[in-house]
Amino acid sequence: MAAEPDAGPLYRRVLALVDELRLAESAPPAERRPVLQFQSPAQLAQQLPLTLGEPLPDESALLQLCRQVASYSVRTSDFRFRNQLYGGVDQYGLAGALLTECLNTNQHTFEVAPAFILCEAAVLEHVRQLIGWQDGDGIFAAGGSMANQYGLALARYHRHPEVKARGLFGRRPMVVFTSEDAHYSILKAAHWHGYGHDNVLAVPTDECGRMRPDALEAAVTRALAEDREPLVVNATCGTTVLGAFDPLPEIADICHRHGLWLHVDACWGGSALLSRRWRPVLAGLERADSVAWNPHKMLGAPLQCSLFVTRHAGLLHRCNAAAATYLFQQDKFYDVSFDTGDKSVQCGRKVDGFKLWLMWKAHGDAGLERRVDATFAAAGYCADQVAQRPGFRPVLASPQCANVCFWYVPPSLRGQEETAAWWERLSQVAPRVKEAMVRRGSLMVGYQPLPHKQLVNFFRLVFTGVPEMGPAEVDYMLDEIDSLGRDL
Amino acid sequence: MAAEPDAGPLYRRVLALVDELRLAESAPPAERRPVLQFQSPAQLAQQLPLTLGEPLPDESALLQLCRQVASYSVRTSDFRFRNQLYGGVDQYGLAGALLTECLNTNQHTFEVAPAFILCEAAVLEHVRQLIGWQDGDGIFAAGGSMANQYGLALARYHRHPEVKARGLFGRRPMVVFTSEDAHYSILKAAHWHGYGHDNVLAVPTDECGRMRPDALEAAVTRALAEDREPLVVNATCGTTVLGAFDPLPEIADICHRHGLWLHVDACWGGSALLSRRWRPVLAGLERADSVAWNPHKMLGAPLQCSLFVTRHAGLLHRCNAAAATYLFQQDKFYDVSFDTGDKSVQCGRKVDGFKLWLMWKAHGDAGLERRVDATFAAAGYCADQVAQRPGFRPVLASPQCANVCFWYVPPSLRGQEETAAWWERLSQVAPRVKEAMVRRGSLMVGYQPLPHKQLVNFFRLVFTGVPEMGPAEVDYMLDEIDSLGRDL
Repeated sequence: MAAEPDAGPLYRRVLALVDELRLAESAPPAERRPVLQFQSPAQLAQQLPLTLGEPLPDESALLQLCRQVASYSVRTSDFRFRNQLYGGVDQYGLAGALLTECLNTNQHTFEVAPAFILCEAAVLEHVRQLIGWQDGDGIFAAGGSMANQYGLALARYHRHPEVKARGLFGRRPMVVFTSEDAHYSILKAAHWHGYGHDNVLAVPTDECGRMRPDALEAAVTRALAEDREPLVVNATCGTTVLGAFDPLPEIADICHRHGLWLHVDACWGGSALLSRRWRPVLAGLERADSVAWNPHKMLGAPLQCSLFVTRHAGLLHRCNAAAATYLFQQDKFYDVSFDTGDKSVQCGRKVDGFKLWLMWKAHGDAGLERRVDATFAAAGYCADQVAQRPGFRPVLASPQCANVCFWYVPPSLRGQEETAAWWERLSQVAPRVKEAMVRRGSLMVGYQPLPHKQLVNFFRLVFTGVPEMGPAEVDYMLDEIDSLGRDL
Repeated sequence: MAAEPDAGPLYRRVLALVDELRLAESAPPAERRPVLQFQSPAQLAQQLPLTLGEPLPDESALLQLCRQVASYSVRTSDFRFRNQLYGGVDQYGLAGALLTECLNTNQHTFEVAPAFILCEAAVLEHVRQLIGWQDGDGIFAAGGSMANQYGLALARYHRHPEVKARGLFGRRPMVVFTSEDAHYSILKAAHWHGYGHDNVLAVPTDECGRMRPDALEAAVTRALAEDREPLVVNATCGTTVLGAFDPLPEIADICHRHGLWLHVDACWGGSALLSRRWRPVLAGLERADSVAWNPHKMLGAPLQCSLFVTRHAGLLHRCNAAAATYLFQQDKFYDVSFDTGDKSVQCGRKVDGFKLWLMWKAHGDAGLERRVDATFAAAGYCADQVAQRPGFRPVLASPQCANVCFWYVPPSLRGQEETAAWWERLSQVAPRVKEAMVRRGSLMVGYQPLPHKQLVNFFRLVFTGVPEMGPAEVDYMLDEIDSLGRDL
């Protein structure tokens, strides 16, 4: 394809497009565009020239295509994007991400990624210190699901290093304990790792979604009685829907008593580590064997930024090493302990540590603490509003993390007896309001039922740290839901 | 931290730094900087302010830090970076990567990534067509090792869907067959998936590193005799060191006869799909059950860009689905078959498909074909030079993929009897030349031994598609090795 005369590389013009469309920032009200321009899959497939084969005629056409794709993409940096546990992106983290994209670096050895290897080590060490560990190890993973998989892999290797050679065959079943409110990645991992879903025991939770220690103890007892081997407990700090923090001290006691590995999925709630005010919700985290945390969630690091840390030094390498001679030569002329790639189950690995390190250099501990505190504060304000506003009904008395869960009850359903039929009608409200907000492009908030708690579809409004939100933004969102739902 | 007055977001200034330092391009000779400025881990740790805690005073300090990190990073876009199976980055692919970084999108549902979901589907379909499949499925994975894991996971689920519920316990051992020259990710995956390294049978290869069909047949027979269950064959198209293409038609026959899943790790050699001239090296690929291919290798797509495809439609979803209610609601108002995230073992997933799709729109099939042909041609020229130049000795008579493997024999070792002591001395040449090139910053080429072939340390000069290389670049590299090694 022909380059445009006098045009720089396309990536520079794409960045100009990002600026023009304000794709990486939350625009002020006067300049707000819809958070998305929804088209159905079939409609959108008509709009976009998806087929591959012939090249586009020139770079202008390519830039036009980028504009089109961007305009049909969701503006995740807009404060109105509250659909998942991530949102806007930290500007310094983004700068770090763009630098590593341009350098096209792979984080497998010191040889090819010298500075980035050291930055990754520094940020992992700082996180371990925040947890309260003097020693240990860690690695950045391709998302929280992968970070949880590292926890399961280490748990097994720590107890049964011989499984690395011999596999699971001929053993009695090993059991993974996790709460019924925990993330589905544990199920997926249990399948891949050879345990099977039947050997994942879903421990009941209390009314707030926290793992019940008595139920965990009972599950361990049951597994033993069934001649299955209890192996690992996955506790959650910040469950995906209700934001619950499992009671780590009690869980750690049970793990200690039975010799179980304690992995903590703190992908969502782990950001409380940074806040003196909120650190207590993670009490007991220092007793974990391993922890997963996603700074790309509440902290606003660019996707993906997931880290896995363990207090067991050396174990990650012994568990995962395969010692490929073409990468991890032992006759190199520098200290090959910095060739950290063999700790990973991946071969090539993106440079995810650097963007977090750069953010941290920019904000410092104190700046990140302010971000976490502001996020919890916004969620708290929202919860107060939900408790006060007519038609809004909280699912929980108070939020535990920065998730605010509630039903919107339209006027047509208010003041009525809450029969099964009434709940059935209420269950249809959230999907219809969601459709309306998406078609209008005015807001994106997730909803879901929790069948194991007999809860029908409710909204989950998630607060993340970028952009910072205050009462005006919260009021806008609740007003919008009210406006979209009042005639249902 | 205080923003600089009148300065845009830091990411824009970082892009200016990328331009100034020419980080994303291979500079012309007059402007060439060292491919790296080597410091040992201890030295570099002194240079960089690694510790986290206090914020930097302002954005200038942060930009200065980016400059410092960039200057100590490896210039992978320089043609002299030939250390791994990736290198320079396609400018259009990079534009796509930067756009998705700025949009901070997660590829789990159509709802949050509408355009990117369609682009991913389009590129996966095009690849399946290139392979010769009318139907099937696929997904982008976090690197080739993960893509190979998808192959292993599908192989097992296809034969034994009940393992998803019940796990591997109580079964006779299942066996994974792969060649002794295959990538180490199969070993790592076999550990995580519960098989254990003992159940990975390393099939001997011929003198060029290709899996021997007779040896595969013998390995299957042996496994059966040992009451182990043959499950899956991982064949390699383009081995990591020698670039060997396993003979797929013969392997597919054996798989067919024994009912084994055939996964093909074409991470390196898969780019031959794009070339009419080189496609024959992949003969039989259409008979595979699943294929992994990394366009971030020869094709120059930005890291990471790894895809997994299978000819079995629907299987990926059935194998990996966990049906989380908060992501994959079935009462959405659009066709939820476009919510492809439940096919993945990840939850969040980077938008890796779009950058490849954009590259493909820019270059078309024909442009990418030219890139592949030019890469093989450069490797061919290099192999000819290696065969002709004094002191260079090829490991193989001719390269199979774009890897050229050779020893450099310094004048002090030429014309001597090749005793064990002589080979021992030769084995030290590559590490010493490597150290010298790294310290000079003039070149980066990998080396390794192949103990199972009784080959001592030799160089592996890998050609990738960006930047395009010709005789001048190849001659520079061989001259440089000669210059660094002639006095050893």
